[in-house]
Amino acid sequence: MIQPTAAPFYLDCDTGIDDALALAYLLATPRAELVGIGTVSGNISAAGGARNTLDLLKLAGHPDIPVAIGAHDPQVGSFHGGAPHVHGDNGIGGVELAPSDREPVEATAAELLVQLAHKYAGALRVVAIGPLTNIAEALRLEPRLPDLIAEITIMGGAALAPGNITPVAEANIANDPEAAAEVLAAEWNVTLVPLDVTMTNVLEETHRQELLASEHPVSQALGEMLGYYFGFYVDIFGRACSAMHDPLAAAIAVRGVELTLAPTVRVEVDTTSGPSRGQTVCDLRGQYLGFPDQRGARCRVVLEIGEDFAPHLLGTMQAAWLSEEELTAPVA
Amino acid sequence: MIQPTAAPFYLDCDTGIDDALALAYLLATPRAELVGIGTVSGNISAAGGARNTLDLLKLAGHPDIPVAIGAHDPQVGSFHGGAPHVHGDNGIGGVELAPSDREPVEATAAELLVQLAHKYAGALRVVAIGPLTNIAEALRLEPRLPDLIAEITIMGGAALAPGNITPVAEANIANDPEAAAEVLAAEWNVTLVPLDVTMTNVLEETHRQELLASEHPVSQALGEMLGYYFGFYVDIFGRACSAMHDPLAAAIAVRGVELTLAPTVRVEVDTTSGPSRGQTVCDLRGQYLGFPDQRGARCRVVLEIGEDFAPHLLGTMQAAWLSEEELTAPVA
Repeated sequence: MIQPTAAPFYLDCDTGIDDALALAYLLATPRAELVGIGTVSGNISAAGGARNTLDLLKLAGHPDIPVAIGAHDPQVGSFHGGAPHVHGDNGIGGVELAPSDREPVEATAAELLVQLAHKYAGALRVVAIGPLTNIAEALRLEPRLPDLIAEITIMGGAALAPGNITPVAEANIANDPEAAAEVLAAEWNVTLVPLDVTMTNVLEETHRQELLASEHPVSQALGEMLGYYFGFYVDIFGRACSAMHDPLAAAIAVRGVELTLAPTVRVEVDTTSGPSRGQTVCDLRGQYLGFPDQRGARCRVVLEIGEDFAPHLLGTMQAAWLSEEELTAPVA
Repeated sequence: MIQPTAAPFYLDCDTGIDDALALAYLLATPRAELVGIGTVSGNISAAGGARNTLDLLKLAGHPDIPVAIGAHDPQVGSFHGGAPHVHGDNGIGGVELAPSDREPVEATAAELLVQLAHKYAGALRVVAIGPLTNIAEALRLEPRLPDLIAEITIMGGAALAPGNITPVAEANIANDPEAAAEVLAAEWNVTLVPLDVTMTNVLEETHRQELLASEHPVSQALGEMLGYYFGFYVDIFGRACSAMHDPLAAAIAVRGVELTLAPTVRVEVDTTSGPSRGQTVCDLRGQYLGFPDQRGARCRVVLEIGEDFAPHLLGTMQAAWLSEEELTAPVA
């Protein structure tokens, strides 16, 4: 098989256990070259997420990727303090990583994104796996952003599946509905990876054990973090396992998995103060005709993928890091 | 099998092709004694719905059931003029019935409901298959209504299925969200029959042909009406057939069909002016545990029934009317 040329990627995240998985996947896959990372408050504060990101990059041996701290507060109201019951107090399940001595760059996340969008004009791909505050800010800093970006993939929302933070709203969107509304109304093609597909692709305890048994320190650290994450999901799934929100969005962004059901439809974000605030209102009334695309719509809503995701996720990391170890192994 | 004792029922409707099916079913089933009918604007005006109802009662040989005209306008705004593209200009697909010479009663629908609730205190069952304006009005007329009514079954809303009038809202609820919010917040046990189950139980052309071939004039008239209704649904289902919203709610109300998935959960109606206005926000976050009931919740949301509904619907009418013909057949 011919290796695809790696495309330049900007990752916007709130690191976060599943963000850590997404970051590891993007570092491992030969399909992506990660050229910059911005953080936003969500699972943890933007500053805390930047620290976790820097420490993970150090552990992974990628000390060269710039990390920028983004918005601490959403457009309306202020940061709610994160989700320690899901991700632990430090955002990565209490796992203590060797601290990086690198600092975030001076630029904000939105500024870094705009810089990279110009540097890689027409080629940069964006993966946004936290609240969309930074992306909305970048759109305001550079209204031509939709022309400069090749595409954007967002983990967020719930289409026909229940929400996870309210009956109908998913956390990334609900943490800044106004920003999400701006991002989804902009004139670019969005791929939305909602709970419909992230909750039906699950990491099991056997997968976690595989990570723990790996010789690579990133895999081991991820396995440890997942111990905490699995604990939260016991109440959701009735067993120790977890959804794979962010790594699935990353894999979809790099075309690492096949989409078997992903209609392009009108999507509107509910920014009222009512019970549906933060909902991604996806027009899926075409359900009974097999979800045909809607003319003029720009948001592709991923409802199904064509394979079991966990083996792809673990296999991608294993393949990358095994070959790395082989390359750096001392000659006998 | 021992025939169950017929319970007294009040029907609130906007007749309507599928309302006509529900009415026919309630007249046919031995499980219900229809003691009063109120109409509300929805598929057609409240006054037009009352005329259709009186004409259908005449055709069915039930000239004794009181019919009351209810609210013409919803609580906010005014009646939008009905759904002639779905139900025809006269509400029953252009079918012309022999006109009844009966008049609606003097009382409003809400007043009739309150009267019947006292007359059949503790026993009356309510089936509401139109916008909930009359039911909300009755709750204000008689705050003890929840204690007087045995139970209420509502055709309306969309839980995990798409809406039919907006991406997330179903017509009965969206036509008067404020009334629906009042009805769902009242202290009674509600069974909600949403699009999730009414759109997956379909009448096919073969069923329509069965109705047309019947010797009973009500079945024949229903078959003719469905010709119009099927035409609307071609764009939804890709073939001539129809959903069975209202008759399914009626059958569930009389316990004519088995519910295989119907969790009791918190339900809130969106009354904002945002994109989710009229949505029934059902808390189905328990999906991954098989939808357990929620403590303190009072609304049972029907998601699945255990059988093919069309044979039950047609069979109920056939059984009732065959025996009627036998009873009235001249002795040879």
